[in-house]
Amino acid sequence: MTLALDPVLTHLNRGLDSSIERWKDLLRIPSIGADPAYDHETRRAATWMVDSLTSIGFDASLRETTGQPMVVAHHPGPRNGPVPHVLYYGHYDVQPAVPLELWDSPPFEPTIVEAEHGPRMVARGAVDDKGQVTTWLEAMRAWHEVHGTLPIKVTAFLEGEEESGSPSLEPFVRDHRDELAADVCVVSDTTMWDIETPALATMLRGLVYAEIALWGPSHDLHSGLYGGAVPNALNVLTRILGQLHDADGRVQIPGYYDGVAELSAKEKAQLAALPFDEAAFLASVGISEPMGEAGRTTLERMWTRPTCDVNGVWGGYTGAGAKTVIPAEARAKVSFRLVPGQDPQKVLEGLRAFLAARTPTSCRTEVIELGASSALRVPTESAYVQAAGRALDRTFGRPPVLVGMGGSIPAVEVIKRVLGLDSLLMGFGLTDDRVHSPNEKFELRCFERGIQAHAALLAELAALPRG
Amino acid sequence: MTLALDPVLTHLNRGLDSSIERWKDLLRIPSIGADPAYDHETRRAATWMVDSLTSIGFDASLRETTGQPMVVAHHPGPRNGPVPHVLYYGHYDVQPAVPLELWDSPPFEPTIVEAEHGPRMVARGAVDDKGQVTTWLEAMRAWHEVHGTLPIKVTAFLEGEEESGSPSLEPFVRDHRDELAADVCVVSDTTMWDIETPALATMLRGLVYAEIALWGPSHDLHSGLYGGAVPNALNVLTRILGQLHDADGRVQIPGYYDGVAELSAKEKAQLAALPFDEAAFLASVGISEPMGEAGRTTLERMWTRPTCDVNGVWGGYTGAGAKTVIPAEARAKVSFRLVPGQDPQKVLEGLRAFLAARTPTSCRTEVIELGASSALRVPTESAYVQAAGRALDRTFGRPPVLVGMGGSIPAVEVIKRVLGLDSLLMGFGLTDDRVHSPNEKFELRCFERGIQAHAALLAELAALPRG
Repeated sequence: MTLALDPVLTHLNRGLDSSIERWKDLLRIPSIGADPAYDHETRRAATWMVDSLTSIGFDASLRETTGQPMVVAHHPGPRNGPVPHVLYYGHYDVQPAVPLELWDSPPFEPTIVEAEHGPRMVARGAVDDKGQVTTWLEAMRAWHEVHGTLPIKVTAFLEGEEESGSPSLEPFVRDHRDELAADVCVVSDTTMWDIETPALATMLRGLVYAEIALWGPSHDLHSGLYGGAVPNALNVLTRILGQLHDADGRVQIPGYYDGVAELSAKEKAQLAALPFDEAAFLASVGISEPMGEAGRTTLERMWTRPTCDVNGVWGGYTGAGAKTVIPAEARAKVSFRLVPGQDPQKVLEGLRAFLAARTPTSCRTEVIELGASSALRVPTESAYVQAAGRALDRTFGRPPVLVGMGGSIPAVEVIKRVLGLDSLLMGFGLTDDRVHSPNEKFELRCFERGIQAHAALLAELAALPRG
Repeated sequence: MTLALDPVLTHLNRGLDSSIERWKDLLRIPSIGADPAYDHETRRAATWMVDSLTSIGFDASLRETTGQPMVVAHHPGPRNGPVPHVLYYGHYDVQPAVPLELWDSPPFEPTIVEAEHGPRMVARGAVDDKGQVTTWLEAMRAWHEVHGTLPIKVTAFLEGEEESGSPSLEPFVRDHRDELAADVCVVSDTTMWDIETPALATMLRGLVYAEIALWGPSHDLHSGLYGGAVPNALNVLTRILGQLHDADGRVQIPGYYDGVAELSAKEKAQLAALPFDEAAFLASVGISEPMGEAGRTTLERMWTRPTCDVNGVWGGYTGAGAKTVIPAEARAKVSFRLVPGQDPQKVLEGLRAFLAARTPTSCRTEVIELGASSALRVPTESAYVQAAGRALDRTFGRPPVLVGMGGSIPAVEVIKRVLGLDSLLMGFGLTDDRVHSPNEKFELRCFERGIQAHAALLAELAALPRG
């Protein structure tokens, strides 16, 4: 027996106001996980999640970590299995709301305002990630209320440290490998292509992040006395950093492009066919022309090519006026966005070799690793991606755009690496949602369609043949 | 009639303890000219100078500026002129004494301690410049006490803003061109070759100092979303700064070496003949081998060659951990030590052209001038340099080493440019005096010989043919 989707969608439609009220309840909790002053509020949000999941048939509990607690909840699915087992990941913590004076309404008093696309919810966490988590929670609630069960087996897994680097995530996942096992993972923490067009992110770049320290003389020296005869740490460091790219914008770390596949003609054509408005893109970042690796389009550069960014440099005198110092030490933060085929550890080794080859005898350098994760590709031909595509097509009247994402989502990488699960990255945000900024918002139109799409996804997943 | 030097030296010798007491009086005044909280103390030091000069026959007065007051004092010299007219320049302000906890004794309680070279005075300003000024003041006092006059005509000119960039100096000198007119200038603010060997600095490098600002996107961007497709201000700035030197360490600013003369074989030989201990030099700055323009010795690099130093760089994220920002803005402080033949304004123009040629279309740069002074060369064949050489030879039993100095002394440049006067740079500090640092000191042996040398210089100058 297959449980029917249509009554679920009807029920959702009638109950939308109640869904919004529950969403607002959650948004009122200032669960700023990074700030210990808000620890009791962050825990309150975790408990709210446990209660909410329990109310729709989950066996839910709060799990202590050395940081914010995890929420883990299991739903057995219908009695007449076997059905797919799906892990839903999300986070209940939010970014700090400062600067408060830039908000048009208090960040933890969710406020619905009318705008271009109709009503929108304005609050910290409106979309990231409380709003997006609510889309799948409310879809599950509707299934529960209509059919008394979910159509598949579900494990819900929420953390409260996503906005502060997820320090407890990997240890917890390692320690609960069996409990978190599933067939596939679903994450709603990404954006749509535009308000009418859904998207599935199927490629996420990885990240290597390092701090470089360079030491020259044993102490700062006066450039009048010593200038020209001793190594200046900033002269040397900028000279090295200035060689990270060649004139064509290619990264000069040895072996950097090893394993990086060229796009197929089909992939290039797919990217070129996307309705990408380059002029609007350039205007949005205030530049007159794009810049990057020669012979690549902007979308290719952002989604499919590995990069190198100097994220910070400091050293010497940076106050007002002139100080004629020869700095003894200089530092930089440098990061690399990786694509499939690149090994983060080999990139770090390459960076070390690159530095060693350019460090003068009278200087010393050190590379401090601050992060190393691989790129991820979700196989677009998989039955799960196809199922998500059908759910989105049904909801929006058009299939999703399969997009790359320039950035990594650390949890998705951990879930792949430790649990071996691909993730369906099906999100309903828009790029102008002001995530992490004042007046964060989520369009109600996106919220409503997100719930519908998740309800449909549950049906599509239930219909998949199961081992 | 020539006034005799010998009784002056004898008088000096007998009165050394009193000289030290007056020096200590001056050192007790915390004349931190850069800190408005010490304005009354700085003024007290100026008044102390006026009183001291008045007590030895000068017509001395304090002159207001928009900053710290100037001290100007005139001594007519002996009645039976004509005699040379000499301008003595010095400064009565001192550097701040922080960090106080690193001092072994309170910075404004002058303390005599025994060390390797005998007793030394430890105090802020012990050498820079109160101690050095005291060497010529006490020499003049002895002449006054023995002969009732100085053997030459003297104008003493002291400022209280040397440690904060001398903002009032050039306007004051311009407005008092006639009053400050003289035949030559004497400055004691430099070091000896070593404790047994005097030095005269006859070449001072000039300085161009600039801040470079570079702007890329209109605001900071997330490297995950945008990395590889937009200009990163730090990628671009480090790339530009990294090209300031070629592989041979030559500065790549267009026209930079225009007008720079190669050293003659004789000049090279003179430098090579100096008893310079390169191993000790390297050890003192904690490096294993020298570094700089190819094909030049360390002394050539420090004294005779123009340079380029990156003095500071800042931009992007510089806190703990990783932040994947693409900075919209990056800044650097860059300075150039100039040698004779280089025009500071042309160097600034060259820097602007260098940047313009390397700034991508989607970025913008600006160069903010923070200082521009030419190099100076004191003609070593001049009668004044010869006279100073004889005075030092008489005092130390060996002639001075004629040295270059890597750094500029702004007052010396103003005095040359506005008043047309060469300066005799005859100082008695040692390179290990910890100028501007905690536990600043001046060896009493250097102090005493400095007074004797200045007494002898007055006699030598008086003996020069005049008019």
